[in-house]
Amino acid sequence: MSFNLTVALDAMGGDHGIEAVIPGADLALKTMPELKFVIYGDEGKIRPVLARYANLRKRCEVVHTDKAISNDEKPAIALRSGRQSSMRLAINAVKEGRADCIVSSGNTGALMAMAKMVLKCLPGIHRPAIASVLPTISRDTVVLDLGANIVCDTEMLTQFAVLGAVYARVVEGISAPRIGLLNVGTEDMKGGEMLRETAAVLSKVKLPGKFLGFVEGVDITNGRADVIVTDGFTGNVALKTAEGVAKMSEYYMRRAFKSSPFAMLGALLAYRSFKKVKKELDPRYYNGGMFLGLDGICVKSHGGSDHIGFANAIKVAAELAHRGFNDRVAVEIEQLMSQESFFVSDIDEEESV
Amino acid sequence: MSFNLTVALDAMGGDHGIEAVIPGADLALKTMPELKFVIYGDEGKIRPVLARYANLRKRCEVVHTDKAISNDEKPAIALRSGRQSSMRLAINAVKEGRADCIVSSGNTGALMAMAKMVLKCLPGIHRPAIASVLPTISRDTVVLDLGANIVCDTEMLTQFAVLGAVYARVVEGISAPRIGLLNVGTEDMKGGEMLRETAAVLSKVKLPGKFLGFVEGVDITNGRADVIVTDGFTGNVALKTAEGVAKMSEYYMRRAFKSSPFAMLGALLAYRSFKKVKKELDPRYYNGGMFLGLDGICVKSHGGSDHIGFANAIKVAAELAHRGFNDRVAVEIEQLMSQESFFVSDIDEEESV
Repeated sequence: MSFNLTVALDAMGGDHGIEAVIPGADLALKTMPELKFVIYGDEGKIRPVLARYANLRKRCEVVHTDKAISNDEKPAIALRSGRQSSMRLAINAVKEGRADCIVSSGNTGALMAMAKMVLKCLPGIHRPAIASVLPTISRDTVVLDLGANIVCDTEMLTQFAVLGAVYARVVEGISAPRIGLLNVGTEDMKGGEMLRETAAVLSKVKLPGKFLGFVEGVDITNGRADVIVTDGFTGNVALKTAEGVAKMSEYYMRRAFKSSPFAMLGALLAYRSFKKVKKELDPRYYNGGMFLGLDGICVKSHGGSDHIGFANAIKVAAELAHRGFNDRVAVEIEQLMSQESFFVSDIDEEESV
Repeated sequence: MSFNLTVALDAMGGDHGIEAVIPGADLALKTMPELKFVIYGDEGKIRPVLARYANLRKRCEVVHTDKAISNDEKPAIALRSGRQSSMRLAINAVKEGRADCIVSSGNTGALMAMAKMVLKCLPGIHRPAIASVLPTISRDTVVLDLGANIVCDTEMLTQFAVLGAVYARVVEGISAPRIGLLNVGTEDMKGGEMLRETAAVLSKVKLPGKFLGFVEGVDITNGRADVIVTDGFTGNVALKTAEGVAKMSEYYMRRAFKSSPFAMLGALLAYRSFKKVKKELDPRYYNGGMFLGLDGICVKSHGGSDHIGFANAIKVAAELAHRGFNDRVAVEIEQLMSQESFFVSDIDEEESV
């Protein structure tokens, strides 16, 4: 597949900044050689690193700015005083058509606030969501929202179901994605009123996938669903809990392998197999928080990720842009909004539409 | 320590019923030989199994009932029509002073509804919570609420912090337990209004522990906190997500060990070390959902657990009863309720107190 695209990069974000962004972009070129980049950041710092990457140098433009958004900057402040920041200029590039997508590993709240303000939502979309792909014991699952919206209502969650299902269709190639709504149990009576109402709406509306009903936390990793929909509070806690348990498992495994000479020898013998598993579950290959529902592709790379993770975030953004994710979303959201059963939750709104 | 206690057992709950309860009670006697049991259930089914356990037979009484609460029974129905059920009779035994605690592996919703109705809350407690002890990379963490209350307010969460801290003090022996409030980030501005208000109250009131502020999902397993407080919806999703990731890790590990002859030999060599780790993290040794805040000790054993898990749930209940958990809670809750800063969230209520 030929990725004839331009990717805008915020070079000033994340724990490793330029040292992850530049090598990451170069690495991305290895699998997507047609990509071009516009790199926003401090040119004096970018050029010396770029000098080491001849291939990338030929395929990128550097736009200088010495303004960066810090990790602890409040989104409202970043919006007001960050107009010349690398993050903002990179987002502007998408808005103004000079790039097809933007990737940043900077402050998530600021990135979302700026992306919302500059790119706006796709027509009909109430609020964007943050989505990520997670590994399971079978094929991957896309989970959303992971933190953009602490409180959600039925219409938002229903739209998230569409966003997730379109992702599974367009990027993962699953024709009828299975969509689950995260709850504390699978029975109809479980959870709060809003969730039960959402399940009722999702059962009624025509979706680009199959609604499974409620799913539980354990279903995030067992492959039961292709799309898992939840509010940003629950999704964020679940994601970080999963991260913590994965770290704990690794910690105990390492300890076991070091606990006796036999185990150490065993570890040596099993080394290749374990390395393969580690790669399969490597969070760097699952890096890329997709901001879905915006009128422009914006992907957040994990702040702590290295160049391998950043290259993956570029791949995620390029896939979304290349496969026309937003065009499909626009069609499906229009289709959703034309259905009467979408509006059961708010009679006033239904009348005014 | 001498556990001179009587434990009421609901023998009719869980996937394995009597086959987990009877061997589980016998196993519990191995470490707590002073325990006595009152076993509620179908005597015709209990006696043949009990015949295999001479030790337990000498230390138990069987009370016959052939009524059982099924797993899909709605709590409201169970309350009305389950008056002669094994679950209800076992709870009654605690209420009437014939037992010091009750253990059941039956329907969680029904058990909570019956326990609340029969035992009532401790004075001052608004709502009981379900708590469980989870492994971390250092010492264990107690997490609550895990599903009793889908929606919580500041006063409930503040009381849960006290319940968890008293548990950590009395059972785990931690003099100043570190208490974290689960959120999507650690900064003060994160999360919804109610959570920020709860953090403000927890910072002001005198607690039987040290309030850390907000913690994240990853902190559930990294040992940063001894007590993690959250609402029952988030706690339930986090717990089941953790369960799912642990299963996935095990799945990938098994696959790695089977993937080549070298890895299989490695697995043989590391077998003992891995068995040790598996035991350290074995969910059966972390079995026992404690219903905290009730005027009587009630512990829920995991429905799918075997006799080892059930024995652990008995141990958890016996510990709570033996160490006078509820007496300590009563003192600490009275102390909490006497503090003006506990009531900031509701001015009307403050005035009426």
